[in-house]
Amino acid sequence: MNAAPIEFHFDFLSPYGCLGSVGIERVAARHGRSVRWCPMLLGVTVIRIMGLRPVPETPLKGEYAAHDLPRFYRLVGLPWRPAPDERLDPLPGLRAFVWLDERDPAAAKSLAQRLYRAQWCEGRSISTPERVAAEAESLGIDGAAVRTALADDRIKTKLRERVDASIGRGVFGCPTFIVDGEMFWGADRLDQVERWIATGGW
Amino acid sequence: MNAAPIEFHFDFLSPYGCLGSVGIERVAARHGRSVRWCPMLLGVTVIRIMGLRPVPETPLKGEYAAHDLPRFYRLVGLPWRPAPDERLDPLPGLRAFVWLDERDPAAAKSLAQRLYRAQWCEGRSISTPERVAAEAESLGIDGAAVRTALADDRIKTKLRERVDASIGRGVFGCPTFIVDGEMFWGADRLDQVERWIATGGW
Repeated sequence: MNAAPIEFHFDFLSPYGCLGSVGIERVAARHGRSVRWCPMLLGVTVIRIMGLRPVPETPLKGEYAAHDLPRFYRLVGLPWRPAPDERLDPLPGLRAFVWLDERDPAAAKSLAQRLYRAQWCEGRSISTPERVAAEAESLGIDGAAVRTALADDRIKTKLRERVDASIGRGVFGCPTFIVDGEMFWGADRLDQVERWIATGGW
Repeated sequence: MNAAPIEFHFDFLSPYGCLGSVGIERVAARHGRSVRWCPMLLGVTVIRIMGLRPVPETPLKGEYAAHDLPRFYRLVGLPWRPAPDERLDPLPGLRAFVWLDERDPAAAKSLAQRLYRAQWCEGRSISTPERVAAEAESLGIDGAAVRTALADDRIKTKLRERVDASIGRGVFGCPTFIVDGEMFWGADRLDQVERWIATGGW
């Protein structure tokens, strides 16, 4: 575990991010590497900076994704059961991650994994502080402390700083992986990520 | 070769399409399958219908693609040497393909492969009827006949019909592969395409 951690840039908004979160941990484990989870916001990169629309609202691509996602989840061995949100708000979950990551990065990663699975595999919304606190409690994390943190301006600022740092690295989509200085975008690039790790690059 | 051909939807505009063109023929050969090449126009799907910008002009994504493309070409074993066009016009090449595909699909595929390589691997523009005719002549195809076909309104209409047919199938990006009714988008999905062929789906 001497090599630098693989960076995994994630937003709960992306169901492909959930696929990537499972895949990158599998790849890292096979090669004795660690993964550093880095929060980002598609609402800032894709919508504001790139000027695009959310995938489900994009003609043709939205219909493709609706077919591709359950197929991709089956391939990876994950249930596909998205929460019935009208519109997912990733902020409470990402702020809870940032708060916990300051104290206990391993616990923060467990929480993020739990939130991804709740939202995309188990049909439970993560769009409110109450729901995020409940998921945290199910992992033995103090729910009252989570709710306090989610109302804390310092944590809001901290998330903004981390999102800015991610954008500063050139990240725009989710999932994005940075391994030994090389950036790969997409759950369908994990084979290239793994090859880069195994061979040292090409 | 009893199974239906794999459909490969392509536009010369996409350097990822060139990667996909090489990859899908390798996959098909490994499984004794044939590939039917289907012209499409990103200028219609991505720009007009989906309302997006070309990748090179999209902030963040453009910079990523500029790094990702040479890396992906190296991985596949292709030279990365794009023609220095200000803006590539795929129409002469796609019309030549459509014209030849009516007469000799194998020759049309050879021409399309030659045009892809000229544009993205060998630095020769394919944006004019003269250049397309020259590339055709290098394969022993009658250049004068190509030039005549490229001025023929019937061929222009024929390309429009084929592009409409592609959109009718739900195609929006390049490369897109349709295998046994399943659509996969992206040069980075060839592993899933191959798995679908090998296993009959999941």
